[in-house]
Amino acid sequence: MKNQQFIDRSLKNLWHPCTQMKIQQAQSLIPIKRGEGVWLYDYNEKKYLDAISSWWVNLFGHNQSEIKKYITDQLDLIEHVMLAGLTHEPAILLSEKLSSITNLGHAFYGSDGSNAIEIAIKMSVHYWRNKGCPKKNKIIYLENSYHGETLGALSVTDIKLFRKNYASLIKKNNPIKTPDWRYADKGETSESYALRCIEDLEIYLQDNHQHIAAFIIEPLVQCATGMGMYHATYLAKARALCTKYQIHLIDDEIAVGFGRTGKMFAFEHAQIKPDFICLSKGLTGGYLPLSSVLTTDDIYMAFYEDKIEKGFLHSHSYTGNPLACSAALGTLSYFENHDVINQNNKTSAYISERIKTLETLPISNLRNVGMIWAFELEEASKNTIKKITMKAIKNGLFIRPIGNTIYFMPPYVINHVDIDFMIDTTLEAIQSYV
Amino acid sequence: MKNQQFIDRSLKNLWHPCTQMKIQQAQSLIPIKRGEGVWLYDYNEKKYLDAISSWWVNLFGHNQSEIKKYITDQLDLIEHVMLAGLTHEPAILLSEKLSSITNLGHAFYGSDGSNAIEIAIKMSVHYWRNKGCPKKNKIIYLENSYHGETLGALSVTDIKLFRKNYASLIKKNNPIKTPDWRYADKGETSESYALRCIEDLEIYLQDNHQHIAAFIIEPLVQCATGMGMYHATYLAKARALCTKYQIHLIDDEIAVGFGRTGKMFAFEHAQIKPDFICLSKGLTGGYLPLSSVLTTDDIYMAFYEDKIEKGFLHSHSYTGNPLACSAALGTLSYFENHDVINQNNKTSAYISERIKTLETLPISNLRNVGMIWAFELEEASKNTIKKITMKAIKNGLFIRPIGNTIYFMPPYVINHVDIDFMIDTTLEAIQSYV
Repeated sequence: MKNQQFIDRSLKNLWHPCTQMKIQQAQSLIPIKRGEGVWLYDYNEKKYLDAISSWWVNLFGHNQSEIKKYITDQLDLIEHVMLAGLTHEPAILLSEKLSSITNLGHAFYGSDGSNAIEIAIKMSVHYWRNKGCPKKNKIIYLENSYHGETLGALSVTDIKLFRKNYASLIKKNNPIKTPDWRYADKGETSESYALRCIEDLEIYLQDNHQHIAAFIIEPLVQCATGMGMYHATYLAKARALCTKYQIHLIDDEIAVGFGRTGKMFAFEHAQIKPDFICLSKGLTGGYLPLSSVLTTDDIYMAFYEDKIEKGFLHSHSYTGNPLACSAALGTLSYFENHDVINQNNKTSAYISERIKTLETLPISNLRNVGMIWAFELEEASKNTIKKITMKAIKNGLFIRPIGNTIYFMPPYVINHVDIDFMIDTTLEAIQSYV
Repeated sequence: MKNQQFIDRSLKNLWHPCTQMKIQQAQSLIPIKRGEGVWLYDYNEKKYLDAISSWWVNLFGHNQSEIKKYITDQLDLIEHVMLAGLTHEPAILLSEKLSSITNLGHAFYGSDGSNAIEIAIKMSVHYWRNKGCPKKNKIIYLENSYHGETLGALSVTDIKLFRKNYASLIKKNNPIKTPDWRYADKGETSESYALRCIEDLEIYLQDNHQHIAAFIIEPLVQCATGMGMYHATYLAKARALCTKYQIHLIDDEIAVGFGRTGKMFAFEHAQIKPDFICLSKGLTGGYLPLSSVLTTDDIYMAFYEDKIEKGFLHSHSYTGNPLACSAALGTLSYFENHDVINQNNKTSAYISERIKTLETLPISNLRNVGMIWAFELEEASKNTIKKITMKAIKNGLFIRPIGNTIYFMPPYVINHVDIDFMIDTTLEAIQSYV
């Protein structure tokens, strides 16, 4: 009864994100009352396993006591002050810790991933302007990339469904060939394909580098296009080319940072140092909106001048919100106090083993990096995918396929029993319709 | 000791917003440990009156028990779930309440003001596209306007200092003559000047309306340019012209909503209904980053189609964050349980009376609407303004002039003793240098 009331009231009063509301009207919408670990509970106490970590933000489960404690302690001191002219301990401590784990510094804060991308884009272009190279003002990006949906972020996002309706508002750009190995030739390894894509990138840079400020990239996994994965050698060689052609590398770790790929940051797989790193989502353990951009001393110093207009004057009212910074400190404290990465490797091995049972089904491109798994049901119609999703949800597994791609990106704290449930429920749902 | 350590660590590790870091290095930076009501305390327990409500976000003081209770209660249920496919009570209740006080609906959530502007711009342009008018895709805005600094928001922001360095990233636009009465001819009333500006607007719309999707406006006060104020008749007549020429009116109440101008929303002064309203800042009482865009049923229904691409597919990971929505519910509950608007009118009258003591100084354009006051020190150099600011801060009053404009925008809960302190400290600081 209460469930249905909330569904009706939500559809009437709320505009849900990334949702065609007419289609949503005909589908299941789940009102969540409370959460505990990997489980979400509706108003009938029916539970759902959050297999996608609430859009890839949650790391250590819902209602996580350590992060919660950091927030409530800060609530008794100061909930928020502006960060211009004033400063506060949570932002200072967080900046120091982020600097030490990223090997970059000078943390600039926003409230969500798209802000972080806008900040990095503006910083890069402004850097070249301050350096006397105003013509270096284009940002290049990969095919199928997703970096957010504010207009600056959308200008480096290549997903047609998100971009096309707003084309008149953004400057036209040409995306770079994606190293996503699903596009490799038959028999070509992911590494060979990555190297072939690098050749294309170099040809492009040779001709255009005078006009390019930065190359923005999702390291290892292009998540929003359906968890497209690529070989780390692409990242390593792209870094080298950016250095060669004096182009910044913007590393968008919003979706994959904080352990998701099996290392703290995905760029570590390629042993590189980006010029900018963009962080959000897992930064607060899935608790509060916060994003951060860190960069090099060289870039920072290009803005450090007597003239105010040479400074980076960007701002958001809630930049460096103390409560959100405290949630992030709680998250980093969890990393310090638990052997997260090693434990994830064990969890990942178990999921990878169990997921093999799905290979009896007509799935393709089964792939994994760290705590992300994905595969395609290439022959399935939109309607079939919808039925599979609704069946999984009915059975207590919350998934949200992207096109024909089904993926798992669970909180790190998922245990073996829950993993078995996740795999078995997916198997059953798919078997019912394909 | 602790103060200085935090200052040094902050300057080393943080990139402060809206700040030339080299200039900041030479000025006072205050590390805030805790807050209570209108007062902020550093690590020596020295206190500062927050005369600008921490960038205009705080309404009812710091460490506000009612809002805090809403957040801690929600923390025990669910900190966050994605709002696509799932929903939750805080977002539902908040959407209902916002709808009832704005007379608009279908709340879409972001995390800060700039997101709200981006959402409104994209919705407006997409609306016209869905309606078969793709050529209506430009957004017009006022001279000296500020609507945020992500690239879409910056495309409708006219403050050169924020825009110029990023001109290559945004499409060129022509701002509309501002009705800010500081630009009126000598002897011209603010109303006559507003009417003269409306004539200009109509001429522009006559020639260009086929290409215009929306007119975005800060109602009554252009805050970031230095609290430029204008007559409500401009807003009323601009609404009428937008209707006549089939252009959306986007009402950016981010800085002035929630009682700041003496009514709950500034648009009420003109007795109009906008097509979009953008809310943030005071929405959570100054606690957490949250923004919302509400709109009309007509606009909502233009997206309500079977085709997914006709839908508004924008998203942010933390859209509708339950903790931020709960802070907003706490804020609205405070409005319901206290006679805020009437009490503000009394407070406002007292401040307006007391501020007359400043008229003995060489100030100009002393102006007020609701809980905002501003004036210029036109003859003062940058250095003089800096000295005045630092003296005020040294004496325990936190202000942050915009150019030659000094303004007050205190939390609503400021009492008479603290008002006296605010005015007297300002008087003394100015008298020392002019």
